[in-house]
Amino acid sequence: MFEKVAIIGPGLIGGSMGMAMRQRDLAASVVGIGRRRQSLERALQVGAVDEVTLDVAEGVSGADLVVLATPASAFGSLLERAAPALKPNAVLTDVASTKVDVVECVSTALRERPDVAFVPAHPIAGSERRGPLAADAELFEGAVCILTPMTNTFPDSKKAVARLWQALGARTVSMTPQAHDRLVARISHLPHLTAVALMALVAPDEAELSGGGLRDSTRVASGDPDLWREICRANRGAIREALVDLIAVLKEMADALQRGDMDALHRMLEEAKQKRDTTIASHEGEGQ
Amino acid sequence: MFEKVAIIGPGLIGGSMGMAMRQRDLAASVVGIGRRRQSLERALQVGAVDEVTLDVAEGVSGADLVVLATPASAFGSLLERAAPALKPNAVLTDVASTKVDVVECVSTALRERPDVAFVPAHPIAGSERRGPLAADAELFEGAVCILTPMTNTFPDSKKAVARLWQALGARTVSMTPQAHDRLVARISHLPHLTAVALMALVAPDEAELSGGGLRDSTRVASGDPDLWREICRANRGAIREALVDLIAVLKEMADALQRGDMDALHRMLEEAKQKRDTTIASHEGEGQ
Repeated sequence: MFEKVAIIGPGLIGGSMGMAMRQRDLAASVVGIGRRRQSLERALQVGAVDEVTLDVAEGVSGADLVVLATPASAFGSLLERAAPALKPNAVLTDVASTKVDVVECVSTALRERPDVAFVPAHPIAGSERRGPLAADAELFEGAVCILTPMTNTFPDSKKAVARLWQALGARTVSMTPQAHDRLVARISHLPHLTAVALMALVAPDEAELSGGGLRDSTRVASGDPDLWREICRANRGAIREALVDLIAVLKEMADALQRGDMDALHRMLEEAKQKRDTTIASHEGEGQ
Repeated sequence: MFEKVAIIGPGLIGGSMGMAMRQRDLAASVVGIGRRRQSLERALQVGAVDEVTLDVAEGVSGADLVVLATPASAFGSLLERAAPALKPNAVLTDVASTKVDVVECVSTALRERPDVAFVPAHPIAGSERRGPLAADAELFEGAVCILTPMTNTFPDSKKAVARLWQALGARTVSMTPQAHDRLVARISHLPHLTAVALMALVAPDEAELSGGGLRDSTRVASGDPDLWREICRANRGAIREALVDLIAVLKEMADALQRGDMDALHRMLEEAKQKRDTTIASHEGEGQ
């Protein structure tokens, strides 16, 4: 599928991509680019990459596909060094969990390289673990990967990235960066902030007494606060809108309780169960 | 520990209690009392009880310990029939998940039986499954059981119920019925309603795209809407207060996002992670 692939940041996601591409013969050679020698050595050890380098320009040169797999906040400075070294007509993609900000940043960084196609991607997969030692070639099996290509991107480049994700086991879906960011605000960022808010309402000795309800509902609150601050910053408009919508629903519930309208509450309970049982619950146990 | 124990409603919780008491020699004989012959036959089959009856008065007569394990909405009519038949100085307990309403209802029903001690209990354990076929003698191992005894209850009766739960594998904690209801509103009922509200904000095709975040955060929303309507009705004052508190925290987050105060948000993320990691997460995998 590709001759040379460069993965900038071969951690959990980047490392899993490299490992799967190597095992499935999707790339003749995979180079891992990073800032720390030790982390790169680990990526080599686990078989996520064929070779490694600390030099971004050297790493991307000659690559048909370059994957940005670092936190999105690093994309600007990385591309400043990488852009001049990219192979003519190379395809650039990423795995960041927000898209409006990424598209703006990368488009700016590539303004001198109109030959390079950027195809933004967000695989909805992950685990509490991080780093190359957590890489897993099966991570994307059964997952969804959202692509947010710009309308003026070469169709062949879009197809190449979509086919890559399908070959990694994911189902691909396309939408605009704006629709993507509104969607992930509600399916990922809002559940995270809600879990944080639920934890704020219990004292430590009360949390000790909790059963499965609070445990499952707040699992995501154990995520990395630094990472989540960046996600919230990157998608703050859409997250704020989602919070306002959530507050309205919770207020509707509080009002129903106050006037003793248990039928109104029952309808909400029924609808949620019905929707969850026919969508999320029917896939439970599959993939991530 | 007890000669004869009567369990009214030997389903998941009542059946698990009977099974564990029989296996651990905590009762010489356990009688299961129910409304449906078929369900009682199942309780017998799985070894949750020694004998069964559809007649409440007959079932409780001679019992040292009577356990109310039906939905709390049935306690009033059950006790109308059971109260005159209770053995002198019998101990009565329950497993309902709300306590202020239960204490009021049972105290009224026992007004002619001042010799009978009521010791309210709420084991924080369960599973998505229901009925006697889901009964499990190990269900309470590592769980917490909250007792909300009245101050004028005979100390021996309180001790008997506390020792029973400890023998079933649970850690017991005592508090007032009011403190209990405020606590469960925040550790159980609020996570449930929050999950329902999160599901209200996503379309079915969006839920299909979700990853582990929404799946874990909304798992409880697959619970039985009829059961949850009754819980919400029984504890509506405390749940409404908890909803108002949650809305205030979410509003604080929305305000921080609007003014771009990522440090304020980071502090909330940090505190939640810290609290969860040192309490709930450190028990993960244990019991329920």
